[in-house]
Amino acid sequence: MNDRLLRALAREPTDRTPVWLMRQAGRYLPEYRATRERAGSFLALARSPALATEVTLQPLERFPLDAAILFSDILTVPDAMGLGLYFADGEGPRFERPLRDEAAIRALSAPDPADRLGYVIDAVREVRKALAGRVPLIGFAGSPFTLACYMVEGGGSDDWRALKTLLYARPELLHRILDVNARAVTDYLNAQIEAGAQAVMLFDTWGGQLSHANYEEYSLAYARRVLAGLTKSREGRRVPSILFTKGGGAWLEAMAASGCDAVGLDWTVDPADARARIGSRVALQGNLDPAALFAPPERVRAEVRRVLDAFGPAPGHVFNLGHGISQHASIDSVAALVDEVRAYSPKMRGSAQKIA
Amino acid sequence: MNDRLLRALAREPTDRTPVWLMRQAGRYLPEYRATRERAGSFLALARSPALATEVTLQPLERFPLDAAILFSDILTVPDAMGLGLYFADGEGPRFERPLRDEAAIRALSAPDPADRLGYVIDAVREVRKALAGRVPLIGFAGSPFTLACYMVEGGGSDDWRALKTLLYARPELLHRILDVNARAVTDYLNAQIEAGAQAVMLFDTWGGQLSHANYEEYSLAYARRVLAGLTKSREGRRVPSILFTKGGGAWLEAMAASGCDAVGLDWTVDPADARARIGSRVALQGNLDPAALFAPPERVRAEVRRVLDAFGPAPGHVFNLGHGISQHASIDSVAALVDEVRAYSPKMRGSAQKIA
Repeated sequence: MNDRLLRALAREPTDRTPVWLMRQAGRYLPEYRATRERAGSFLALARSPALATEVTLQPLERFPLDAAILFSDILTVPDAMGLGLYFADGEGPRFERPLRDEAAIRALSAPDPADRLGYVIDAVREVRKALAGRVPLIGFAGSPFTLACYMVEGGGSDDWRALKTLLYARPELLHRILDVNARAVTDYLNAQIEAGAQAVMLFDTWGGQLSHANYEEYSLAYARRVLAGLTKSREGRRVPSILFTKGGGAWLEAMAASGCDAVGLDWTVDPADARARIGSRVALQGNLDPAALFAPPERVRAEVRRVLDAFGPAPGHVFNLGHGISQHASIDSVAALVDEVRAYSPKMRGSAQKIA
Repeated sequence: MNDRLLRALAREPTDRTPVWLMRQAGRYLPEYRATRERAGSFLALARSPALATEVTLQPLERFPLDAAILFSDILTVPDAMGLGLYFADGEGPRFERPLRDEAAIRALSAPDPADRLGYVIDAVREVRKALAGRVPLIGFAGSPFTLACYMVEGGGSDDWRALKTLLYARPELLHRILDVNARAVTDYLNAQIEAGAQAVMLFDTWGGQLSHANYEEYSLAYARRVLAGLTKSREGRRVPSILFTKGGGAWLEAMAASGCDAVGLDWTVDPADARARIGSRVALQGNLDPAALFAPPERVRAEVRRVLDAFGPAPGHVFNLGHGISQHASIDSVAALVDEVRAYSPKMRGSAQKIA
């Protein structure tokens, strides 16, 4: 197996820097759009293990990536709690029954993944089988805090007013939600690990909206609890974890001490500064500006080299974007990105390039 | 005159921490909504020196604030360049003629503020007169980069795709826009100073969307140019300046070395960490989470004390929110905020409280 990702997450030397892209199975690919069309809707696609497997593998057919990431959505977990996930046309995810009163919050409980999220676990199994050892499979979940944002707000938001009102006016109720979410996410990731996920990633998309004083209490404390509860794989191997907080640049030291194996960096963070602050305690993942993929291939290559240089030649870097790939990214530019990581990173190491 | 703001910006001791709120003349006030109703539209309000003066003074009638900030909009400057500012219902600001091709960018020039922005300059004069020395008047402008975001995109955006495409694909054209903007903003702020503004603030609302490598080149370099071009007041006094980049926590040292007198901190930044990094080179402004104003007054008071404690008793702190006040903020909570700063900050200093 191509084990570059797992080696980099363990901060072991690799012949070149492994590369994958957040949301790599997605709308920028015409073959993804075709499968989604066939499925009828995003949710139908996510709920079909066969179709989820198909789209998970699509980017690997096009680009020589070093990892697959399960095609799914972070909001499957609150959906399994009974909140009723749906997608309004052009409006992003919404919940039919957001947590709008104390009774709803008190009634919340962590779902049994085998029962309510079996379609995701089945997809993990199918993808693992279909990959046949080509590259490792990454499982994932939303962080307890990020899930709570959507669960309280009922959908995305510019100011997260309902969530923040709860946080400042009734913090004990938000802690109750986060406690349930931490258990739900731990169980969910462990079910993915049991089904074959070889690494897991926790997406804390909205933790960066919190004040400095609140990030530790409402986001990181619960991410830490999830990370501490992760089990080993069926083969008895420790499964490495990646923690990503968008806008989390101020808290890298704390994130690195959370129990994760790697910290994901968004594009606003200076990789050299991150490395200086974190040292070699954990690996780093990131952090090309996703908007660089709107530029022509030659510009993308220059940006890729700049990012690789900023991370430097030390082991423990997984190349990625600083956030999910845009549906408007140019495929030629994505190809240039992957190719440039493969071409340039071995030279940085001063070691001979091996082809996987 | 109540000179607490000017003293704090000069890092001189004050009896208590001065306080004002970004967007303090705004929609959360019923009297503002009434004046706007009377004006017919936001733009009619902003373009009438008499009405702009009226709303600028409204928050001072309600709360014992230590500064007034001119009621206006950062997009008056690109509007004066001929881009055609308008407000679509419930959609925020838009431009009729965004910069969509090279010819439009090459044709751009800095407007003469006396000619095209006379209504703002008149408002500054009227407000200064109406204030009659009660508190200092803060003038302001958008940063060259933040203005460019709207000018290229044509309005607000989640991903600033048009702007970022220009940045990565045709950086020389973005530099051309930024160069014009820097001259326009310098002239505009100097006209405000000439008309009586006693401090100025540069709002870099979108600089935090840039990658680490790009922030210096596309945002800070041009803010620095503006700051270097500011003139003295008619009385020959140096007019202090505040530089605020939302999401700029990674770049505080560079911002502090930009030539500004104070750095504005958003709510994600730890004030104690900011002080440790910046030292006493400049004053600091901020940084209560604006969402704290959704909570009841007693919770707000506790959050205010937490922020004051984090900044500590050293001179050089201007209390503010970490971003503009929300239209949904509770007026009782705003009153509690201002009152708590007045009540608690003198105790921190261990000095007797003087009433202005």
